[in-house]
Amino acid sequence: MKIGIVSRTDKVEALDLVKSIVHYLDENNVPVEIERRVTDELVEFVDYCVDIEDMTSDIVLCLGGDGTVLYAQRVLSHKKIPVLSINVGTVGFLTEVNPDDVFECLDKLLSYDFFIEERMQLDVKCDGEWITVLNELVLMTNQPAKMLDLSVSVDNEIADEVRADGLIVSTPSGSTAYAMSAGGPIVDPRVDAAIIIPICPFKLSSRPKIVPSSSNIRIKFQKEGKQALAVLDGVNNKIYDYMDEIEIRKSDYPAYFVRFKHNFYASVDKKLTVV
Amino acid sequence: MKIGIVSRTDKVEALDLVKSIVHYLDENNVPVEIERRVTDELVEFVDYCVDIEDMTSDIVLCLGGDGTVLYAQRVLSHKKIPVLSINVGTVGFLTEVNPDDVFECLDKLLSYDFFIEERMQLDVKCDGEWITVLNELVLMTNQPAKMLDLSVSVDNEIADEVRADGLIVSTPSGSTAYAMSAGGPIVDPRVDAAIIIPICPFKLSSRPKIVPSSSNIRIKFQKEGKQALAVLDGVNNKIYDYMDEIEIRKSDYPAYFVRFKHNFYASVDKKLTVV
Amino acid sequence: MKIGIVSRTDKVEALDLVKSIVHYLDENNVPVEIERRVTDELVEFVDYCVDIEDMTSDIVLCLGGDGTVLYAQRVLSHKKIPVLSINVGTVGFLTEVNPDDVFECLDKLLSYDFFIEERMQLDVKCDGEWITVLNELVLMTNQPAKMLDLSVSVDNEIADEVRADGLIVSTPSGSTAYAMSAGGPIVDPRVDAAIIIPICPFKLSSRPKIVPSSSNIRIKFQKEGKQALAVLDGVNNKIYDYMDEIEIRKSDYPAYFVRFKHNFYASVDKKLTVV
Amino acid sequence: MKIGIVSRTDKVEALDLVKSIVHYLDENNVPVEIERRVTDELVEFVDYCVDIEDMTSDIVLCLGGDGTVLYAQRVLSHKKIPVLSINVGTVGFLTEVNPDDVFECLDKLLSYDFFIEERMQLDVKCDGEWITVLNELVLMTNQPAKMLDLSVSVDNEIADEVRADGLIVSTPSGSTAYAMSAGGPIVDPRVDAAIIIPICPFKLSSRPKIVPSSSNIRIKFQKEGKQALAVLDGVNNKIYDYMDEIEIRKSDYPAYFVRFKHNFYASVDKKLTVV
Repeated sequence: MKIGIVSRTDKVEALDLVKSIVHYLDENNVPVEIERRVTDELVEFVDYCVDIEDMTSDIVLCLGGDGTVLYAQRVLSHKKIPVLSINVGTVGFLTEVNPDDVFECLDKLLSYDFFIEERMQLDVKCDGEWITVLNELVLMTNQPAKMLDLSVSVDNEIADEVRADGLIVSTPSGSTAYAMSAGGPIVDPRVDAAIIIPICPFKLSSRPKIVPSSSNIRIKFQKEGKQALAVLDGVNNKIYDYMDEIEIRKSDYPAYFVRFKHNFYASVDKKLTVV
Repeated sequence: MKIGIVSRTDKVEALDLVKSIVHYLDENNVPVEIERRVTDELVEFVDYCVDIEDMTSDIVLCLGGDGTVLYAQRVLSHKKIPVLSINVGTVGFLTEVNPDDVFECLDKLLSYDFFIEERMQLDVKCDGEWITVLNELVLMTNQPAKMLDLSVSVDNEIADEVRADGLIVSTPSGSTAYAMSAGGPIVDPRVDAAIIIPICPFKLSSRPKIVPSSSNIRIKFQKEGKQALAVLDGVNNKIYDYMDEIEIRKSDYPAYFVRFKHNFYASVDKKLTVV
Repeated sequence: MKIGIVSRTDKVEALDLVKSIVHYLDENNVPVEIERRVTDELVEFVDYCVDIEDMTSDIVLCLGGDGTVLYAQRVLSHKKIPVLSINVGTVGFLTEVNPDDVFECLDKLLSYDFFIEERMQLDVKCDGEWITVLNELVLMTNQPAKMLDLSVSVDNEIADEVRADGLIVSTPSGSTAYAMSAGGPIVDPRVDAAIIIPICPFKLSSRPKIVPSSSNIRIKFQKEGKQALAVLDGVNNKIYDYMDEIEIRKSDYPAYFVRFKHNFYASVDKKLTVV
Repeated sequence: MKIGIVSRTDKVEALDLVKSIVHYLDENNVPVEIERRVTDELVEFVDYCVDIEDMTSDIVLCLGGDGTVLYAQRVLSHKKIPVLSINVGTVGFLTEVNPDDVFECLDKLLSYDFFIEERMQLDVKCDGEWITVLNELVLMTNQPAKMLDLSVSVDNEIADEVRADGLIVSTPSGSTAYAMSAGGPIVDPRVDAAIIIPICPFKLSSRPKIVPSSSNIRIKFQKEGKQALAVLDGVNNKIYDYMDEIEIRKSDYPAYFVRFKHNFYASVDKKLTVV
């Protein structure tokens, strides 16, 4: 088993943990590769240096918060490499392991005492190119205090016409992220569905909608002179104008996560009450 | 094609419409059977009389509101007989045809210009017996102003521990019924999921949960001296006591509906704004 | 200063605390009177026995949860006697002192190191008689799974026509009790307003309404054959029928509470997160 | 009685209606003054031209939507001049008269058959200067997809610490505007209170808070590197940085509106269902 390492580099704790992990893996004669951004900081590991796009590991450890996981899965899900995420720094809904339990978990990893969880992703068509998201697409007004007028169709049927600050199209993974702040339900990651939620809708009878993940979802901007910003998994992507259309469909590439326990609900509950 | 007829009998409009429909079917030489409750009122049709449990039609017309549909599907879904529901009297989320369009729809029916929509049902274990619901199970406090303490497990993992007035476990069909009043999302009937929603939960961070329909859901009553009432598709069923457990699973019997158009969202939206 | 004592009698901790408090007050030569329900259990204090209606204390200590406070204020607010509530047993939104801090607080009490907070109450006209509530009036359906049709008027203008499981009319004190579970806002007790909230309304655009406490609020039952149960501060009161009307107005009698700190928000927040 | 006229100038209907109104007032020998922005478009009325700041009318007619009313009241409320708002173009929560009813209402106006409604305003301290808002102050993140960390104090007690997309501090007038889209209650304009509502809060137990309008409300930005944008009554005002503080208090200047009927609830309901 070859292990890759991706980490946030702006926290000393994260880099220190990388060092300990590499030493542990070295001692156990496990082949290691480390993302270039990390070896730029930890030059002693320059021999392990590789670009994330070129990783060939069986499993990649990802040290950081949800942002780091989203960054890593953007590349690794398309390479079908499972990620074991280690929480460093903040509350993470996607992370699996706390720093205190890292070495216990690595023991389990090396003795194949784990399972792989598959998480559905969505593809969003932006400017002719399909971009994969693990959590969500957020469309938001680009002009403060000016609402968007959006038309949402599901499999060519108009499902909603909303005037709102924005709109979220989320996976079940994303249901415990931003979609939840906007009033959405908690969706078990095994449910094969996408969640469509308006942000601060003007029409009081608006409700979140749960649609089959196999649906073809299209969002159209209905008002001249308004602009919308697309944010994909927390990254700003593109400005949309009047009559532009966004298309969303289930991705052929799920994200894979290393798990040690079936504890989705306990884990959501714990993170919600810590907050 | 043999056509069965079920109808509410407390409204003259419904019985009048039954008469017109039977005449239309007679003229078209379509074999007819009519539920005994209806022929008790319309004695001229006594020759067509049959108990709903003994119906052998290819399709059953159901005249009334959601209550009548729920009543008919309780029997007919287990016999795999599709229902064409005709709205008489009130807003119906399950009904397909308005009285004005009945004969146009019958024409389409007789020329096989329709499709069959399958709607997932849930089985609820009550007193050792499994009862099928098309919309939802509601558990509610039997003592006004006294909350219930419930523990909900999904596939043997505790998914929620709630203190609330009650709890709803709903199908996607039920998501536009009582579950919506309790704050639930609209769930496309093609999504293979159950919706779990507390009613007026004490814990403010409670959220609706969407779980795979294949889940084994168990609800346990946690507080001595409190009683809960189970209401299945609007019908009172059983009183539960401390430590009683209710089990819910996907039914082997979906309900079948005759449809003429793919218009789930338009239909929900129309009914919500009429209200 | 004469001190009265009211307590729940079904918990040994409460009765034990009563004993300690009486000894403390005796030692400090403070005149004491104790409610008969308590002396029935603690016969050694029979000399202090008085009915709550006959209390003449300057301040009454109330040991228990919110239920005990509501019970005591029902009588004491009309006698303008301030209550110092001591939490025994459960989370209390109306209670001020935790058991561990009782004697520190009694010291402050005897040295006049406290202030009196006034809490607005509402009067509800039931069967020709006005009954005072500190938290709320709840109207709820008396037939499970059957909604009520209610018309609410504020100062003779129709403010809402709701089909719902029930309706709450709450004071600011009650805004952190049942009204909150039904989705209501937190209302600072200094705001001179009543809160009207439907329970599980059918119409999705229903919203809580905040009206001046000086308003004349009238609720009328609109549907034949339906019955509603009125629950006043958690106590079942009366069954209402079709076309019955309930009238609500600000009470001439506020409830008075002994307070040591201005900490409404911290106290709400603490209780919400403990839960 | 001298009548002033303020109008949006980007709609022909509005300018046409101004012409008809001026002719009506001329015929009735009513002195008229017209805002310069309008006479710039309708040069035939140049003799009536005056800057809004210099208006001396007894009542000002305001033609447009809520934006025009907010613009006019920003100046006129400080001059204690009542506004009669005439809806041209869109749904307006602040407007009183529909175009069809203008001349009937002008008849009533000239025969003093109306009353004046006072609407509370809030003053917001920005950069040392107090700015008056009729609807609300919105603080929103200036970096898409990055939440704000805010601390809200009410009369020097911390009332909330929120991580959210933004925060609204609204008057009762504003409760039917943006605050409602964010999940707030409908607040009767006679209630003397401000409404504090987080926008898409991360903490699920967050609730809207209703505080006395006499409160001193302070909002502090708690996170380094984040910026917030203040939007006052729909107008962008100022960027706030880490540790900046905003202060809000009840304005000495209420806004005055000409009204013909007591119909707050009917009017809100109508506008909500039209939408």
